[in-house]
Amino acid sequence: MIYSKIPLSQTVVTLCKTHNLKHIVISPGSRNAPLTIGFTHDEFFKCYSIVDERCAAFFALGIAQQLQEPVAVVCTSGSALLNYYPAVSEAYYSHIPLVVISADRPKHLIDIGDGQTIKQKNVYGEHVLYNANLKLDISEKTASFSENGKPILKNIENKLERFLGLQKDIQTYNESEIHDALTLSKLNLGPVHINCPFDEPLYETIEELSINPKPFKIQSREDKVDRFEIKSLLDVWQNAKRKMILVGVLQPNSIEAQWIQEIADDDSIIVLTETTSNLHHPDFFSGIDKLIAPLDDEDFKALQPDLLLTFGGLIVSKKIKAFLRTYNPLFHFHIGLAQANDTFFSLEKQIKLHPNTFFSVFLPLVTHHTKSTYKHYWLTVRQKRRKLQEAYLQTLPFSDFKVFNTILKQLPKQSQLQVGNSSAIRYTQLFQLPKNIDVFCNRGTSGIDGSTSTAIGASTVIEKRTTFITGDLSFFYDSNALWNNYIPNTFRIIVINNEGGGIFRILPGAKNTENFDRFFETKHHLSAKQLSDMYGFDYNSAKDEKELDAQLETFYQDTQRPKLLEIFTPSRVNDTVLLDFFNYIK
Amino acid sequence: MIYSKIPLSQTVVTLCKTHNLKHIVISPGSRNAPLTIGFTHDEFFKCYSIVDERCAAFFALGIAQQLQEPVAVVCTSGSALLNYYPAVSEAYYSHIPLVVISADRPKHLIDIGDGQTIKQKNVYGEHVLYNANLKLDISEKTASFSENGKPILKNIENKLERFLGLQKDIQTYNESEIHDALTLSKLNLGPVHINCPFDEPLYETIEELSINPKPFKIQSREDKVDRFEIKSLLDVWQNAKRKMILVGVLQPNSIEAQWIQEIADDDSIIVLTETTSNLHHPDFFSGIDKLIAPLDDEDFKALQPDLLLTFGGLIVSKKIKAFLRTYNPLFHFHIGLAQANDTFFSLEKQIKLHPNTFFSVFLPLVTHHTKSTYKHYWLTVRQKRRKLQEAYLQTLPFSDFKVFNTILKQLPKQSQLQVGNSSAIRYTQLFQLPKNIDVFCNRGTSGIDGSTSTAIGASTVIEKRTTFITGDLSFFYDSNALWNNYIPNTFRIIVINNEGGGIFRILPGAKNTENFDRFFETKHHLSAKQLSDMYGFDYNSAKDEKELDAQLETFYQDTQRPKLLEIFTPSRVNDTVLLDFFNYIK
Repeated sequence: MIYSKIPLSQTVVTLCKTHNLKHIVISPGSRNAPLTIGFTHDEFFKCYSIVDERCAAFFALGIAQQLQEPVAVVCTSGSALLNYYPAVSEAYYSHIPLVVISADRPKHLIDIGDGQTIKQKNVYGEHVLYNANLKLDISEKTASFSENGKPILKNIENKLERFLGLQKDIQTYNESEIHDALTLSKLNLGPVHINCPFDEPLYETIEELSINPKPFKIQSREDKVDRFEIKSLLDVWQNAKRKMILVGVLQPNSIEAQWIQEIADDDSIIVLTETTSNLHHPDFFSGIDKLIAPLDDEDFKALQPDLLLTFGGLIVSKKIKAFLRTYNPLFHFHIGLAQANDTFFSLEKQIKLHPNTFFSVFLPLVTHHTKSTYKHYWLTVRQKRRKLQEAYLQTLPFSDFKVFNTILKQLPKQSQLQVGNSSAIRYTQLFQLPKNIDVFCNRGTSGIDGSTSTAIGASTVIEKRTTFITGDLSFFYDSNALWNNYIPNTFRIIVINNEGGGIFRILPGAKNTENFDRFFETKHHLSAKQLSDMYGFDYNSAKDEKELDAQLETFYQDTQRPKLLEIFTPSRVNDTVLLDFFNYIK
Repeated sequence: MIYSKIPLSQTVVTLCKTHNLKHIVISPGSRNAPLTIGFTHDEFFKCYSIVDERCAAFFALGIAQQLQEPVAVVCTSGSALLNYYPAVSEAYYSHIPLVVISADRPKHLIDIGDGQTIKQKNVYGEHVLYNANLKLDISEKTASFSENGKPILKNIENKLERFLGLQKDIQTYNESEIHDALTLSKLNLGPVHINCPFDEPLYETIEELSINPKPFKIQSREDKVDRFEIKSLLDVWQNAKRKMILVGVLQPNSIEAQWIQEIADDDSIIVLTETTSNLHHPDFFSGIDKLIAPLDDEDFKALQPDLLLTFGGLIVSKKIKAFLRTYNPLFHFHIGLAQANDTFFSLEKQIKLHPNTFFSVFLPLVTHHTKSTYKHYWLTVRQKRRKLQEAYLQTLPFSDFKVFNTILKQLPKQSQLQVGNSSAIRYTQLFQLPKNIDVFCNRGTSGIDGSTSTAIGASTVIEKRTTFITGDLSFFYDSNALWNNYIPNTFRIIVINNEGGGIFRILPGAKNTENFDRFFETKHHLSAKQLSDMYGFDYNSAKDEKELDAQLETFYQDTQRPKLLEIFTPSRVNDTVLLDFFNYIK
């Protein structure tokens, strides 16, 4: 076996193994050579090489999103790790365990004019769960410098003893910091930063480990039920005539079927599910915006719940946020392990349990209502909206709205759908997806900066095939996502190219001026064709319904290369079609 | 005139004008609409639209690098501003006045689950000179929330009076913070962050300003000469037999000709100039690495100065750093306004004056040495090296080294050269450039993340034509740099494509293994052709000397589009040629 000669590198690599952290996304560099050597020479690890750190981090995020276990990114010193930051913030708000391992210079070489050197400690501020600022291994050379660059050993009589003592202290400290970081990332599901100062020489190797880390017990999370909390919710629940459950981002198959059924059978409960919740039942309300958009004050009052129960991650629908902020529920309880958001300014309490644990304890205690009209009334409304939507679709010209209807209907069964921000996910939410499609979208920060990389990372670790739907700005923004050797041949990209940020046409403000085109919609005439050629994708395009239907017939057939389908839609039609839709379904 | 209705937006825009900040690089977004509306409707400002914030910030950095005055980038909330961070850190270490203006949500909408929202305050940590965390304009709506989201006005009797008082306090605070940030950026030359919380509605406009900012005196920097400092240096200087002046990154024409000549005439002074110093004299030593690399211990002792004087920014040459760290000068003085680095662990004192001011005060006091052999001895060495380099070039196969010799010789006269990191600038340093070529390179953090964007930004505000020379990894990393409408037709890119990170072949460590190819050199077979087609560049390539000569004959002719020349060089020859060079010139 080959190891870096540097003990700190051995320690990081060994402890990642102890914590069963397998996937390592490495960006090239010299300062991180000790880590690259360590990780890539141990077959336990699956290592990836991706040059652009922004893409590398989102790629790793995609893997961690699927596996729900820590995935590491490894980079050199300097601005390299700043390029991770967009993905780090996404991981923080989406509760994804992303482990940043950055190489750094020794303290005494920082801020003295060396290249590729910045102030790396705590650089992600409050957007990580933990900062492990590791210490430089002590050696004869470095022993003469303390953390602040001042000599420390010069006047000590028994140098060797002192040296060995320091060495041991540092090793213990580093092991403990790495354990803490990896444990927190896994248990609390979020990003952590491990910063590793290395001194030259960086490339030396040895064949035996020179470290001997202390044994460490891997902690696991335990759900602890607090009977008082359950009771406090139960009191509210039993008296609430109208109960609304709103479900945000959730892994597929998170909730056991028996709880889904039991909730669905209660007529006093409305369950609103976002597309990203991956939660399905015929009686659940999946098109939240469709339900809410056409309502007036009287309707809102009829919909306003006494009790709001939420679980899952962030909510896409702006309309449900606006509704619940104005028509406050009397009580809002959130169920889940990650820190709850007071999204509707009415959060009463968070119950820190996995929803399954919660339901298994809570549901047996409740008295169900079968005579409420709450759910049935709104199911009728839902039915009406769905019919009107079908009718509306018949009248439409070729447009984003129509295209989403077509492509979502033709997704392969048992496949994964990754969706870009922000129009793409908002359109997707307007249609019912079958239960067998798993849906993911970066809704932590809702950025357009790494959706393609995330989708590709995710696709490398699942058996299902992946379709990624994105707008043009988001796709071009993250074009370097295609620059890697890990894209499965089954991977499919659909770019809805409306030549700019179509979402700005939906928002308020003056339209169709030169100023609007340039600074808001940012119009362009780019195509994804050249990038497809460059990175070895089969490329096809469609600019009307007929071409789209023809392309979709063969799009999902097996190929020797991944495929990209670019659909050109008319920007000055899209916004009218969408805005008219909400009027039509009233 | 059209203004955003939001007073805070008016205040930011108006004060930027007061401070004569003209260039505004805007990325599309909704939260920043009040700023976009304000800046783009005032013809005082030159506004640019660039989608990818990473590129936008480096583009702005390029403008500020040329003008040496504050340039602003404006973006929406969320992860958008994190994509500025690589350029912010470069600006920090290169002392470039980059002003980040980010839109934010109101405090009570942060960390409650809203989209595109992160903890924006102070997000650039210690890599900015100032954080202006502006406060939300107080309105009837927002008056009910304090900074921590709790209601504040509910129990106050005279609400209107209190409201108007708060409003005035906030306006005064915001004006003062903006002035401070812009003043610091300009005077201390570095990045600052102005964070602007805006509440909806974001798109409303008015035709008259609703603010009336207090008059503000624009400060300017004054050089204050400290006679004692000058005296302390003079004492050392007069006794120093060997004086070395080392010059880092400097704007062209920074140093007055009379001082250059006076220094050059003193035989006890050696002036080592980096390519990025833009400082020229026949007696100065421009190829530092060529001088240092072949030396042995005895030579080093002969070169070791008694006094080291530095000015300018960061130093590229690793060899001069290693030399001066080992063979310490007795005294090191740094002349310049920006914070000095103790690069050689021997900094005695920084004299905070512009070099011209310093020389004008200092040089009249010194006694010059014309009988020292110090300079003449090393000029002989320099001459020998130059001849050996010429001879070596005759023997060479087609390679990076040879290509740099060819392309640098054929740069158009009176033009600007922008150089990528890191091989590109290191090769460039090995050749003598004529005085009429201005050279720039991002050496603050020495990242590969934004060199193309910087070069393009710079090219938009200068009259000289720009040639940008870059390696392939750096070019592909920043490929989105080409995604904008501001690239002059005279702009020229030369990509030296050696199919990977050639620099890693120069560094220690095992070569030519599958592991090395994948994780260090990161080999690829990409070409810049498709990106050239996509973004409207004329594309040509060369893979040998004959083709290169042929291409260069027409490369700088006027065209209707910018041009890119891709030169393919053999990666497994390049490293040998470079390493052999240093042996050859011994």
